[in-house]
Amino acid sequence: GSSSSFSSSSKLLFRQLFEKESSTYTYLLADVSHPDRPALLIDPVDKTVDRDLKLINELGLKLVYAMNTHVHADHVTGTGLLKTKLPGVKSVISKASGSKADKFLEHGEKVYIGDIYLEVRATPGHTAGCVTYVTGEGADQPQPRMAFTGDAVLIRGCGRTDFQNLVLKIAFVLIFNQIFTLPKDTLIYPAHDYKGYEVSTVGEEMQHNPRLTKDKDTFKSIMSNLNLAYPKMIDVAVPANMVCGLQDLPSSQPN
Amino acid sequence: GSSSSFSSSSKLLFRQLFEKESSTYTYLLADVSHPDRPALLIDPVDKTVDRDLKLINELGLKLVYAMNTHVHADHVTGTGLLKTKLPGVKSVISKASGSKADKFLEHGEKVYIGDIYLEVRATPGHTAGCVTYVTGEGADQPQPRMAFTGDAVLIRGCGRTDFQNLVLKIAFVLIFNQIFTLPKDTLIYPAHDYKGYEVSTVGEEMQHNPRLTKDKDTFKSIMSNLNLAYPKMIDVAVPANMVCGLQDLPSSQPN
Ligand SMILES: [Fe+2]
Ligand SMILES: [Fe+2]
Repeated sequence: GSSSSFSSSSKLLFRQLFEKESSTYTYLLADVSHPDRPALLIDPVDKTVDRDLKLINELGLKLVYAMNTHVHADHVTGTGLLKTKLPGVKSVISKASGSKADKFLEHGEKVYIGDIYLEVRATPGHTAGCVTYVTGEGADQPQPRMAFTGDAVLIRGCGRTDFQNLVLKIAFVLIFNQIFTLPKDTLIYPAHDYKGYEVSTVGEEMQHNPRLTKDKDTFKSIMSNLNLAYPKMIDVAVPANMVCGLQDLPSSQPN
Repeated sequence: GSSSSFSSSSKLLFRQLFEKESSTYTYLLADVSHPDRPALLIDPVDKTVDRDLKLINELGLKLVYAMNTHVHADHVTGTGLLKTKLPGVKSVISKASGSKADKFLEHGEKVYIGDIYLEVRATPGHTAGCVTYVTGEGADQPQPRMAFTGDAVLIRGCGRTDFQNLVLKIAFVLIFNQIFTLPKDTLIYPAHDYKGYEVSTVGEEMQHNPRLTKDKDTFKSIMSNLNLAYPKMIDVAVPANMVCGLQDLPSSQPN
């Protein structure tokens, strides 16, 4: 049903964290039933790396992966900085992003922390390398499922699609097939929100998302006519994010 | 255990909402197993009333109560505005606040929406009328429990205590007795956060809160020596909040 609002599991420790300047959400997931208490961060921001590490330390977690849903244009990723402060952490991104990282993911792959896993689903549109990370299927995985959509699906919106030359009708079909076919109570956790919303569900977005409830031609026409300004941060953020946010340090080189 | 991070219940629909300018959290709770889908808001902000009503409408909820944890000094409450936009909504606050409202609460009282209830716990300190709302005890109530602490307990902090002439050692004992005696996995949902944290637990704050992990004499000395600036909004916010945020409208008069 659409009634429960939060994923629960005896083994998942979950936190959503906010970076105010770029309105970015960072997600912390850990398997606290595993003796190592392994953890991962999704979409960390350079400016909040110290906050994130303090929390990870206080909660007694071991950070294994620093992952991105895509090459962000609005903030610098914290993955490179995390690696310099906690050697052993691996940066992770989709192969299709073209970015540097320690571990590259392809559609359908799984990323494990302890017994909890994330499934990788290709959801290009905002960028060609955008992926959505979805928690696993089955009774031993968090219920309801959680989808970390990056900018592919935002709460009552979606990321702009004018950065790369993508076929918008295909992007729309992929978002629809990869996200809106999940159970209706799947929690949508986006990379950003500008109005103070934190979470939604697949059912809610299928009913109330003003862009994604349209047919694919209308979607294309909406997205092609947004006439958005050139993003402030893009010329700094994209080159930095292509190399984990650190251009100078040897630790940002891929293994 | 300290493992689960979110309260879950087949009947509770829960959302945390953020108002960026004052870094205020508003909470929406509803019993969606009840045919009316009755809902309440805790600490609504005047500026985000339209957002909150849009969400309540999209989720098919019936707003019954607009509650405050205390008379805020940093933002104007949305309770009065909610009442003018949705007649039938009742404003709720502690009797000890001295504020106008439709319904006054005393320590130990319960507030029901459908089968879900909140318990009122007096936690003066930040103001004399501060209360914490705690979800009910028992298997039919959300698990783990949730404590909406206002400014009594913040994540890794607590609200300033220099507004009213309170005995700080007593405040400290009350916070301790009323909040830190709850199960360790009880979720702490504060009225504010300035660093991007959204939730904590009783166990976590008992271990890591830099003010509340001290003895009561150290607490008194920390709180007496903060030398904080006079709050920007206080001369506007407090008089407005004493009358539900609306000074002119007849609907802001108590029943
Ligand atoms: Fe982005
Ligand atoms: Fe306050």
